[in-house]
Amino acid sequence: MRNSYKEIDLIELEVLYENLKSKGFSLDLTRGKPHEDQLDLSRSLNDPLDSFLYQGKDVRNYGELLGLSGCREIGSQLLDFPADNIVAGNNSSLLLMHQLLSFFYIDGGEETPWNKKDRVSFLCPSPGYDRHFRLCEEFSINMIPVSLTGIGPDIGSIKKVLEKDESIEGIWCVPRHSNPTGDIYSDEITLQLLDLAKKHNFKIFWDNAYSAHDFEESLNTPNIFQLSKNIQAEDHVIAFASTSKITYAGGGVGFVGMSSRNLDRFRPFYASTIISPDKVNQLRHINFFEKIDLKTHMASHANLIRPKFDLVEKVLSLQPYGEWTKPSGGYFVSYSSAPGLAREIVNLAKEAGLKLTSAGATYPYGIDSEDSNIRIAPTACNMEELESALEILVVCICLANLRKN
Amino acid sequence: MRNSYKEIDLIELEVLYENLKSKGFSLDLTRGKPHEDQLDLSRSLNDPLDSFLYQGKDVRNYGELLGLSGCREIGSQLLDFPADNIVAGNNSSLLLMHQLLSFFYIDGGEETPWNKKDRVSFLCPSPGYDRHFRLCEEFSINMIPVSLTGIGPDIGSIKKVLEKDESIEGIWCVPRHSNPTGDIYSDEITLQLLDLAKKHNFKIFWDNAYSAHDFEESLNTPNIFQLSKNIQAEDHVIAFASTSKITYAGGGVGFVGMSSRNLDRFRPFYASTIISPDKVNQLRHINFFEKIDLKTHMASHANLIRPKFDLVEKVLSLQPYGEWTKPSGGYFVSYSSAPGLAREIVNLAKEAGLKLTSAGATYPYGIDSEDSNIRIAPTACNMEELESALEILVVCICLANLRKN
Repeated sequence: MRNSYKEIDLIELEVLYENLKSKGFSLDLTRGKPHEDQLDLSRSLNDPLDSFLYQGKDVRNYGELLGLSGCREIGSQLLDFPADNIVAGNNSSLLLMHQLLSFFYIDGGEETPWNKKDRVSFLCPSPGYDRHFRLCEEFSINMIPVSLTGIGPDIGSIKKVLEKDESIEGIWCVPRHSNPTGDIYSDEITLQLLDLAKKHNFKIFWDNAYSAHDFEESLNTPNIFQLSKNIQAEDHVIAFASTSKITYAGGGVGFVGMSSRNLDRFRPFYASTIISPDKVNQLRHINFFEKIDLKTHMASHANLIRPKFDLVEKVLSLQPYGEWTKPSGGYFVSYSSAPGLAREIVNLAKEAGLKLTSAGATYPYGIDSEDSNIRIAPTACNMEELESALEILVVCICLANLRKN
Repeated sequence: MRNSYKEIDLIELEVLYENLKSKGFSLDLTRGKPHEDQLDLSRSLNDPLDSFLYQGKDVRNYGELLGLSGCREIGSQLLDFPADNIVAGNNSSLLLMHQLLSFFYIDGGEETPWNKKDRVSFLCPSPGYDRHFRLCEEFSINMIPVSLTGIGPDIGSIKKVLEKDESIEGIWCVPRHSNPTGDIYSDEITLQLLDLAKKHNFKIFWDNAYSAHDFEESLNTPNIFQLSKNIQAEDHVIAFASTSKITYAGGGVGFVGMSSRNLDRFRPFYASTIISPDKVNQLRHINFFEKIDLKTHMASHANLIRPKFDLVEKVLSLQPYGEWTKPSGGYFVSYSSAPGLAREIVNLAKEAGLKLTSAGATYPYGIDSEDSNIRIAPTACNMEELESALEILVVCICLANLRKN
């Protein structure tokens, strides 16, 4: 890697790029996956259970639809909801999101099911999490992109949409270390969202996936359960979390939190879809967090991923183009190129053996109208691989910019 | 327990019943749950994994949407479908059933989604599995009861329904040791079903929950995948199984099998609902079945539950009323009282401290028009408890019959 790419000219850069291409790299910065060293932090989850009994009942058998109480406590800690308002599920909060959308779509609880409505729309702060948008597509939910401000979505533009569109049933929020922009929602914006959700009767899908995932000193996230109670809007919040980026990415526990009233409505639907979650894995998690507290454990994660984010910042700073975030937690750096270059940069990188998240993937319907956003996910590889990947990235950024000029 | 309840008169019986009531029993024969001794057969599932790598990939991380190949092989063994046609999911085949119904309801693949149809109906061989019926209710699927013959549903009455009702989209089948009647489907009936499914374009939901669960010599179940291929009807079969009654009831692995064409259609929908199954648990299962083969393992289960079914047979034979099944596998005995007595018997038992499956629960909408069927699930308790429970049951059967006369 060079000390700087700021003064480099196009001819030199083309040579550098061809040189990188010839090295036959195969690197992948597409997904926010933990590295093996992070997974190893939870190695004791693998210890055999001394007992299969939890509160007198055998966890290997059926039962406990909403999850073991101690596991619901873990969800409570992540979501700042009372444990009684938490469902501890299987390994995936995405599945719980699907089950909640299914519930509103098919059953509706006390309200008209979405499948009986002519049009259902969601506000989608963008760029955002591609899986949220994919879920909406599957349910034929119309997606309306809304810009983010760094402290949450732009309330002004949300108000404008709500004034003219009565089909809004929900909004996707990643309130802490947003994927990919790193937004941490402010109290003020959260309160305004709650107020609007109550007034226009829509639901806030509060995906607090990175609630405990700081690697630098970070602002607090609003306690949405408390805020919603203060203005009697608690039925307008459905909150999600999981241990996917705390213990095992594929074998953790997912959680959903909701008001008691919503849980009463949802419970019979949920009971039709599953007899009980995997309580063996839940008990493993309970035992695990009895031995180590969440904060200490997350500090170990932070120590492993902080250097990766530092390296991204350092390498991106070696070149003069675009803007990018410097998150204090989460799994992503969001890079904004000059308009019209994102796809080109991603393609150049691909040819040099570096896979990046497809340009546009972080927008509803995969359309980034500016063609500007690139999501960088630096955690999955080791430091050496990351350095190689970032070298390719900055060369491609410079090349795309210089070729254009 | 008496040697016989055949000659007993009403006065004596009333005394006996009051006596049983005074003993303060609290017994439960409601659900087909394995007993702890059965769960202990899979104790080595609890051994720590020596390695988290499977085919070079870390099972703790995201990935492998359709499950680990070795785990899909286990599903293949249970369902007689090629492993490539199997999805190995999380702990619950019920959840996979829900996901399949969601797929047909919301997405539809190449066909019209059910939510866009005026009326969707399922044929429901009855008595059957209450959870199947509950799922239908949640999706507002109209249920049409069909009687069972001992070797599968009555094809004649199915044909009559199909002639006048074009809304049939599916049929629920438990083809081996049916819950609760113990039917083992014949080749002939299965072929006729496939033929009708193809002709009238509906799907056979083939819940092979007890495929390996014989405790006596049993007839074979048709290989529906092969039969369906023979008549080009493979897109009309969706098959389910799980290890819930093989390893852990709440922490096993669920499977769904379908044609390659259906899997191609279903896969993108499934990908919207979950990133990957819990592959840590799947690897545990792969390792487990490398140490012991399925047949040997199921023979151990059989040895534990056979005496319970023998006891049910023995005790029911002490009294003169009704008819009941003598299954060669599965988890249930189906008892048929004289019409109009099932609810009464269940209530009498409840007052004496024995919970039985609610009368009617095994019928669509919970309605047993004859009020005759009682499902007996003898596996969950130990032999001593089962004996007490069965004593209560026969006393209640006799009492209800004698009171009526």
